[in-house]
Amino acid sequence: MPPASGDSSESAPSVGELTPPTRTLMGPGPSDVHPRVLRAMSTPLVGHLDPSFIEIMNEVQELLRYTFQTDNQWTIPVSGTGSAAMEAAIGNVVEPGDTMLVPTNGYFGGRMAEMARRAGGDIVEVDAPWGEPLEPADVSDALAEHDPDVFGFIHAETSTGVVQPDVSELTAAAHDHDALVIADTVTSLGGVELKVDEWGIDVAYSGPQKCLSCPPGASPLTLSDHAMEKVLGREESPRSWYLDLSLLEGYWGDDRSYHHTAPITNVYSIREALRLVAEEGLENRWERHRRLAGALKAGVEGMGLEMNAPEEYWLPSLNAVRVPDGVDDGEVCADVLEQYDLEIASGLGDLAGEIFRIGCMGYSARPENVALVVTALGDSLESLGADVDPEGGVAACRKALR
Amino acid sequence: MPPASGDSSESAPSVGELTPPTRTLMGPGPSDVHPRVLRAMSTPLVGHLDPSFIEIMNEVQELLRYTFQTDNQWTIPVSGTGSAAMEAAIGNVVEPGDTMLVPTNGYFGGRMAEMARRAGGDIVEVDAPWGEPLEPADVSDALAEHDPDVFGFIHAETSTGVVQPDVSELTAAAHDHDALVIADTVTSLGGVELKVDEWGIDVAYSGPQKCLSCPPGASPLTLSDHAMEKVLGREESPRSWYLDLSLLEGYWGDDRSYHHTAPITNVYSIREALRLVAEEGLENRWERHRRLAGALKAGVEGMGLEMNAPEEYWLPSLNAVRVPDGVDDGEVCADVLEQYDLEIASGLGDLAGEIFRIGCMGYSARPENVALVVTALGDSLESLGADVDPEGGVAACRKALR
Repeated sequence: MPPASGDSSESAPSVGELTPPTRTLMGPGPSDVHPRVLRAMSTPLVGHLDPSFIEIMNEVQELLRYTFQTDNQWTIPVSGTGSAAMEAAIGNVVEPGDTMLVPTNGYFGGRMAEMARRAGGDIVEVDAPWGEPLEPADVSDALAEHDPDVFGFIHAETSTGVVQPDVSELTAAAHDHDALVIADTVTSLGGVELKVDEWGIDVAYSGPQKCLSCPPGASPLTLSDHAMEKVLGREESPRSWYLDLSLLEGYWGDDRSYHHTAPITNVYSIREALRLVAEEGLENRWERHRRLAGALKAGVEGMGLEMNAPEEYWLPSLNAVRVPDGVDDGEVCADVLEQYDLEIASGLGDLAGEIFRIGCMGYSARPENVALVVTALGDSLESLGADVDPEGGVAACRKALR
Repeated sequence: MPPASGDSSESAPSVGELTPPTRTLMGPGPSDVHPRVLRAMSTPLVGHLDPSFIEIMNEVQELLRYTFQTDNQWTIPVSGTGSAAMEAAIGNVVEPGDTMLVPTNGYFGGRMAEMARRAGGDIVEVDAPWGEPLEPADVSDALAEHDPDVFGFIHAETSTGVVQPDVSELTAAAHDHDALVIADTVTSLGGVELKVDEWGIDVAYSGPQKCLSCPPGASPLTLSDHAMEKVLGREESPRSWYLDLSLLEGYWGDDRSYHHTAPITNVYSIREALRLVAEEGLENRWERHRRLAGALKAGVEGMGLEMNAPEEYWLPSLNAVRVPDGVDDGEVCADVLEQYDLEIASGLGDLAGEIFRIGCMGYSARPENVALVVTALGDSLESLGADVDPEGGVAACRKALR
């Protein structure tokens, strides 16, 4: 943290107008925000208990249910970023002494484990290497061996660019062992096929700044009646007051009574972002992500690079591209930011230094952005000495976009 | 919670344009947001690790230090609403087995207690009736009797309209007993005199939607080095991963490494709101709140109503006005909302039904708003049958505004 100046308490700092650079956001999130959503954020506030706001809350819940493909009554935006929704899910569902089964195949399984531990849970793991999905047979074995109360998995792993197939098989196996299923859908909601009810997911959470293209600050969460029964029947209160769903029930439930002041503007913005989802239609949106990210993939492969995930587990919203020999990933990211005002990201955890993470999410999933990524990446890699074919990449991308 | 329609998962809901009514916000928060802050919220996003965002974070920290009147290095906006900053303060500073001394003189002392309990702390209380400040002698006695590790108090009680005087006496007494002091400054920061360093406050938190007139979503928190030593030296991790300050140190500290995605737009907005504080100057701002709320007070007294708090503890940012005989407070609030698009609020807790809570905060603290409150309140009370003198109120208010 930069040192305090030492005289902060005396004089008013002089800080200029807010003039951030204009970026194209093709990293792991946030994605570019639609102008209509930005405009919604400049709407003057009403109070968090205003009758008109109650109506807005109802609309957001209805739009969230559609986007999650669920009839769960308990579907709300949590007052915080995606990690707050994640902690609300885990911290309410996992009770002290519960056992939670978590995956090891990416960064966010580790975060699940850490949150469950802090909720007082015991952790057991189902193993898969970073960059691979879970095998249903391994999950079944782990369920049989450990008999956990809760099973968590990552539907779309932002750290590896892998989508988990066979979700219904995993949930069926968990339910056979009476385990509740928590799904991390941070990088899939609104961009990649997700059917909470049909797939038997008990609890799902997400972030708004990925495929919904909404600024972070109010984050989707849905729980089945069955999951809420466990939450409302807890012997000991959850360890967070702020994220206690039995208290939030007072605000989002029939009473609409005060718990904490909702982030009103963030609720406005997610409402507008979800309206855009409903207008486009979920299936169309999934198809657009596949098509645009497909062109991106064609472009990077056309210039001679390799995707980290095989076709079967490829996650369109987050494209993990192998860093070619001879270049430093950090230098490439800095170069495209400098030259093209374009954000892409490096790998993290087990894949640090090995992959680029290139998002193709929501409003960012447009032909002009995909074409820019392919051009900029080819240019930067070549200028930094990698053996790539920039023109081959652009040609393949153009062809795929037609 | 309104029942789910039962077919959410099939069809896209049709939800219209966002068109909330235009309110004047004179309740306990949110307050009216300055147009410059609304405009800042429609700024396109950069990534939360963008070099340009790092600079914005530094500026926000510097502006927060000025507003808190502190040189504390550890001064940040927490990614959530005021209650998240409150839980970040209490959940990190209070360790399992610690004893925390909390006040009973309002709603938010009770919330402190609840959060400390969930952090694993034991609670002891220092008593004062709702509507009274703490007596330094009572605090000293309680400190001597219970020898707590942490002492929490509410600087500006939003539920009673009372400001705590003698803060330096309280902190000195606490420090004599080696207790850390946590101050709730939700309704004072940026509106009422507050000097964190000079007054010896170890930890203070606030909300943005009160005297800073910023939409809720990123909430001020400051900790002294001494308090951070305790936090960083904990044996057991805090019970929240999201609000764990030792992890947030990685993002807001020198590393600027990923912890969670910051609510970028909310950081933009608090930056602009704090710029407005710096431009006006803190002392001028405190004086403006006293002057405008003074006119509001003159107006309500001029129509024959009584303030709940005596002059010595009167909190300009939150004016608790006794409900006159013969009217229902809820009906009055609904009537001014309906007739004048004006938000004021009822009492809560021990003072439910007994007081109106009328904010005079930040950008809402303007002559036109104060005049509207006095006119609307007099009109509603009279039309609902209370024995008041509306014209007397308006005359007193006008005179005080000159």
